Amino acid sequence: MTNIETLRWVGDWAGHLELIDQTLLPIELATIECRDVETAWEAIKMLRVRGAPAIGIAAAYGVVLGVQPVASGDKESFCRRFEEVTEYLAKSRPTAVNLFWALDRLKRKAAALQGTASPKELAESLLAEARAIHEEDRRICRDIGRHGAELIEDGQGVLTHCNAGGLATADYGTALAVFFAAAESGKRIHVYADETRPLLQGARLTTWELQQRGIPVTLICDSMAAQVMREGRVQAVVTGADRIAANGDAANKIGTYSVALAAAAHKIPFYVAAPQSTFDLSLPSGDGIPIEERDPREITHGFGRQTAPDGIDVYNPAFDVTPAELIAGLICEKGLIQPVTAERIAEVLGACS
Amino acid sequence: MTNIETLRWVGDWAGHLELIDQTLLPIELATIECRDVETAWEAIKMLRVRGAPAIGIAAAYGVVLGVQPVASGDKESFCRRFEEVTEYLAKSRPTAVNLFWALDRLKRKAAALQGTASPKELAESLLAEARAIHEEDRRICRDIGRHGAELIEDGQGVLTHCNAGGLATADYGTALAVFFAAAESGKRIHVYADETRPLLQGARLTTWELQQRGIPVTLICDSMAAQVMREGRVQAVVTGADRIAANGDAANKIGTYSVALAAAAHKIPFYVAAPQSTFDLSLPSGDGIPIEERDPREITHGFGRQTAPDGIDVYNPAFDVTPAELIAGLICEKGLIQPVTAERIAEVLGACS
Repeated sequence: MTNIETLRWVGDWAGHLELIDQTLLPIELATIECRDVETAWEAIKMLRVRGAPAIGIAAAYGVVLGVQPVASGDKESFCRRFEEVTEYLAKSRPTAVNLFWALDRLKRKAAALQGTASPKELAESLLAEARAIHEEDRRICRDIGRHGAELIEDGQGVLTHCNAGGLATADYGTALAVFFAAAESGKRIHVYADETRPLLQGARLTTWELQQRGIPVTLICDSMAAQVMREGRVQAVVTGADRIAANGDAANKIGTYSVALAAAAHKIPFYVAAPQSTFDLSLPSGDGIPIEERDPREITHGFGRQTAPDGIDVYNPAFDVTPAELIAGLICEKGLIQPVTAERIAEVLGACS
Repeated sequence: MTNIETLRWVGDWAGHLELIDQTLLPIELATIECRDVETAWEAIKMLRVRGAPAIGIAAAYGVVLGVQPVASGDKESFCRRFEEVTEYLAKSRPTAVNLFWALDRLKRKAAALQGTASPKELAESLLAEARAIHEEDRRICRDIGRHGAELIEDGQGVLTHCNAGGLATADYGTALAVFFAAAESGKRIHVYADETRPLLQGARLTTWELQQRGIPVTLICDSMAAQVMREGRVQAVVTGADRIAANGDAANKIGTYSVALAAAAHKIPFYVAAPQSTFDLSLPSGDGIPIEERDPREITHGFGRQTAPDGIDVYNPAFDVTPAELIAGLICEKGLIQPVTAERIAEVLGACS
């Protein structure tokens, strides 16, 4: 198939937003048409669209939907509505940084044009900015894929954890971008996808994305990764990251650290693919990254069925930190950061920002 | 609470086997009556009874069930049926060495008596032998617990994978026997229990057993074990084993190897607790241990709901092999085998058999 269109805008400024309802995957591939800002808001709120970059893009298009009804009216009504709509969307996922980042970009755009442009011209400009955010993310994914694919050889088995794919981004992903680009360049690869307990993003989303693109993929439980490596089935590991400290320590979905330890024991290179925006250079090391703890029921009531005794104590950290020394290289849109040291990271990011 | 009666034989040679249906735990504590060998076979195959020692005991009683219909007939029919039944039961769980060990004991018993005993006397003797295996396992568990408890210190955090508890044995477990005995001797311990995908024996059974005995336990996903170690919460790991080769390589539930690697990386001692019957000295190393592959649906439909795309390829090895060099000590009924080498194993087992 062609690329997964996580979301897309149809038509001109008076058009609408279509997005894949990820809560139905992998059982059903259905899209939602968002023809008003309320529908877009609900899709973000209910995780129908998820992944930081994808949320930002959806919110940007949501603003356009919100101002459509007043684009033929007077400028004062338009500006009042614009403010309402951005405030409203900011409340859909209050902790999502990319959401505010995208809304801020649209606010700056509107502020710059407000003096001269008509409401209709403003609506057109907001759509253009939303499209730009969308397109930039697409290019970042492609660049990560291109750089990462050079690390993968024809005939290799590769392994990933969680979902750092097209569904979390504009269309091509970060870790999965590496596999997509390798396959597009003619390399025959076989992907092992960790199911990723407790929320099974690997089983539900990663396998689906690879299957859609016709890339051979085998689903395993997280606990099987080490055995799969021992059997010689895997020659490289690539995962995404949620935050990377200045020294290269990388926070990612819980279980990533375990995979990195197993890769080290089998002398298999472990790569992390993430855009520059994932780096938090204010943190000297991963020790400063706060680890979110989530609802015990994600473990005890996976998918609506109770699988542990009543009242049992649970520890459910959502992330872990893989120390830089276990990471063979960081793949960002500017290229490969290797070796993973504070100096090299500063050099590559500094030179390219 | 009193000990869990994982399985018990009711009546004389014409009686039946009762066992806890472990697939229903921890939501429901229900027993199954096995009145024919097919029901016993299905219970082993479908993990209603599981754990190497318990499988051996169930298979031994299963043989008695299998010969009941021919115990009033001629000796030739009895012997043919006995052979059929032992072959049939051997196919229920190919990795479980205790299964073959128990069947072999019954074969030796039958061979010794065949010349003089009537079919009914043979059936009685086979039941006596099955009861002996059952009773011996009970004593073995207590001895393993006693030896292993010496390795655990007051105030320690300990971690285990899968269920090597009372439910896996006659009544007290192997790995969990170590924790039970440590707690009984007044040591305050805190157990971290891996949920153990795909069948969640840790979440369903280990937490339940510990909770029943009032020992503090925290449930985690398998992928969290490394993080829990990194946070300094665990000072020792103890698991069971399904088969141990002559050099000490140990096959156990999938995911054990991953835990052993994480323990090694954090310099935490990793112990394996198992009876002598788990040792297969005919295998020089773990490379010769066959690894059972199980139904993909255990992974794709694990929570009563489909969580992966239709037609996805799955790899579902039921076991992995932890190499001897990652094992700090083997705890058997005769004491601690340390260091884990072929010489030391031969010495301890040879001296005690």
